[in-house]
Amino acid sequence: MENFTFVSPTEFVFGRGVEEEVGQKLADRGAHRVLLHYGGRSAEESGLLDRIRRSLTNASLEFVEVGGVRPNPEITLIREAVEIGKAQGVDWVLAVGGGSVIDSAKAIANGIPLEEDVWELFETKRPNKEVLPIAVVLTIPAAGSEASKNTVISNDALGRKTGYGSDYQRPKLAFLNPELTFTLPPFQTAAGLTDMFCHLLERFFDDMGAVPVTDNLNLSLMKTVRSEAPRVLADPDNYDARANIMWAGMLCHQGLAGVGRHEDWATHALEHELSALDPAITHGAGLAVMFPAWMEYVFDENPARFAFYGQEIFGLAPTGDVRADALSAIDETRAFFASLGMPTSLGELGVEEDDIEKMLPTLKQNKGDVFGSFKKLTADDARAIYRLALGY
Amino acid sequence: MENFTFVSPTEFVFGRGVEEEVGQKLADRGAHRVLLHYGGRSAEESGLLDRIRRSLTNASLEFVEVGGVRPNPEITLIREAVEIGKAQGVDWVLAVGGGSVIDSAKAIANGIPLEEDVWELFETKRPNKEVLPIAVVLTIPAAGSEASKNTVISNDALGRKTGYGSDYQRPKLAFLNPELTFTLPPFQTAAGLTDMFCHLLERFFDDMGAVPVTDNLNLSLMKTVRSEAPRVLADPDNYDARANIMWAGMLCHQGLAGVGRHEDWATHALEHELSALDPAITHGAGLAVMFPAWMEYVFDENPARFAFYGQEIFGLAPTGDVRADALSAIDETRAFFASLGMPTSLGELGVEEDDIEKMLPTLKQNKGDVFGSFKKLTADDARAIYRLALGY
Repeated sequence: MENFTFVSPTEFVFGRGVEEEVGQKLADRGAHRVLLHYGGRSAEESGLLDRIRRSLTNASLEFVEVGGVRPNPEITLIREAVEIGKAQGVDWVLAVGGGSVIDSAKAIANGIPLEEDVWELFETKRPNKEVLPIAVVLTIPAAGSEASKNTVISNDALGRKTGYGSDYQRPKLAFLNPELTFTLPPFQTAAGLTDMFCHLLERFFDDMGAVPVTDNLNLSLMKTVRSEAPRVLADPDNYDARANIMWAGMLCHQGLAGVGRHEDWATHALEHELSALDPAITHGAGLAVMFPAWMEYVFDENPARFAFYGQEIFGLAPTGDVRADALSAIDETRAFFASLGMPTSLGELGVEEDDIEKMLPTLKQNKGDVFGSFKKLTADDARAIYRLALGY
Repeated sequence: MENFTFVSPTEFVFGRGVEEEVGQKLADRGAHRVLLHYGGRSAEESGLLDRIRRSLTNASLEFVEVGGVRPNPEITLIREAVEIGKAQGVDWVLAVGGGSVIDSAKAIANGIPLEEDVWELFETKRPNKEVLPIAVVLTIPAAGSEASKNTVISNDALGRKTGYGSDYQRPKLAFLNPELTFTLPPFQTAAGLTDMFCHLLERFFDDMGAVPVTDNLNLSLMKTVRSEAPRVLADPDNYDARANIMWAGMLCHQGLAGVGRHEDWATHALEHELSALDPAITHGAGLAVMFPAWMEYVFDENPARFAFYGQEIFGLAPTGDVRADALSAIDETRAFFASLGMPTSLGELGVEEDDIEKMLPTLKQNKGDVFGSFKKLTADDARAIYRLALGY
């Protein structure tokens, strides 16, 4: 078990109707002027944004709005919001939405107190302690950004998508009402389930032996996502299924499922290049394609780890052939994602063989010459994994 | 799944040698004058206290010391420390020890900014927001007080032992070095393991149906404690076993293992009266006796829950008779505690039938006429459970 530090300061307010408490909770924390940040039409049309505006007004809070965050949030809108936030003297950032909106809000909260352009943080990865406090009303459980230390931002002008991690940008308040997720379309629900599950896989497979306390917790979350996934897809208005998924989504990426381990994260790096190539590619769908391909390419480094995973999560009986057991576990993983309606090949995402060489240079820019932990990967390895993911 | 709020603001610094970072981390957080609080000889003789004094001095922090905390910490020493802390203007409380020292430190941190006597908080349970920040160097993994919202204090003059819960008294910093636990005697290690396991049982059994995300996480921790317990007892210097247990002990009582559930806590109430009766009774040993007795008394409320627990934790195969399966799970629980060297009857703790009537009045004072969730218990029920625990 490796040395580690861990802090998760987020206060979670979980359950029916909790978005009504946003204004009061922000006022209790000393907020005065809030930057209200959100995505597109759905939060407006559902009436959620109006409920939140009313809650802020009832608590005598001022607020300015920046909407229009798109999936794979882009630096241009963030820069605009930073300028507005500076000019208006906002002291909190309130994100209403899913991972894209929250990631965008994290960049904004870093950028407002900063003199330089906020993209510099994504280039240099330098620590930044002066971050405005962030609150979140979560509408899409998936990315875990409501409690995580991470944000991932796209820069279309540079053709790049890259992350920034810091405990200082973990949200201070998160409001999680499972009812807000009843209307999520099946594809988006499924992509979210895939994203959660992959956050666990990235932490479970690395170059270390067992860390039972962390591994057992990680596996318990995999079991939850796997067992609740068909319930929530079959019955989208099932409060308990939605609630279990919403809370699991947070825990999958908060950090506890990986403490004391090295973790891997190669597959996320490979997927980020897909959505940098085509912002229309949903992160979870990209992961559903890339993870089984990565698994097939790397599993021989430690087939016993995959066999154990297959036994714990898919109930596979050991055959005596640990390599065969590992391959069965990989097949089950692909089948699980497919059962959710996720794609199984790059072709289904519109990515072709010629695209691979376009992604490798920015992958190298983002991750260096060698990345990953379970197996150290080079550009040649990345090319081979993308080819496996082509599915032909 | 019930509505809940959850916050765990503690920053954990985990691993070899982390106690050397105490001074710097406290200085980074703005500490100036620290109340250093500890128990008896062991932290002095091992050199741990000297390393911490040096770390504080190296970070240019002033400190005053109050040692001598006993198991089942008593209000008299707390009052003395509060007076010293007020007089000296301390701004942080640093606990070096196990649950008793940390619980004592929590009471002190509440008491220093308070005008009234701190025992009033334990009587009235009123919220207190003005709490000095608390740091912890943990030496005994068991109580989970290094991250929990709870403290339990004894008042010998009143013959009472009672708790106080508040998110404001959760420690802000916790230093967990598994090496510091190598020298724990087997009995204390075992009592700690029992305490952890019982923190999970209290949360698992209540009057609700399944909450998969919370239940799976809870069960994952039970599995960890159960599998690491024999390793750590057979090989006390095994760093990884000690590390898994130390981190599990925190997670068992931080709160995640019960969110969205009602939880029970009747058995802790029954045990607190034992150590109020005789402060020499170790909390974990008292729990080892009382939990199986409570289980036998209440399981008919929901035998399927016990049968499920037995399958998940002890690998029991369902027999088709759910009552029999539940009883097997209870037998396994008692056998698990016995395998750690814990007592199985009140007689082994020196408690006799006549003592039962002495405990019931203070139990009523602390918990009211009815307590518990899995089954609502009255004084008559409590008497019956204590009698079952007599073991004859």
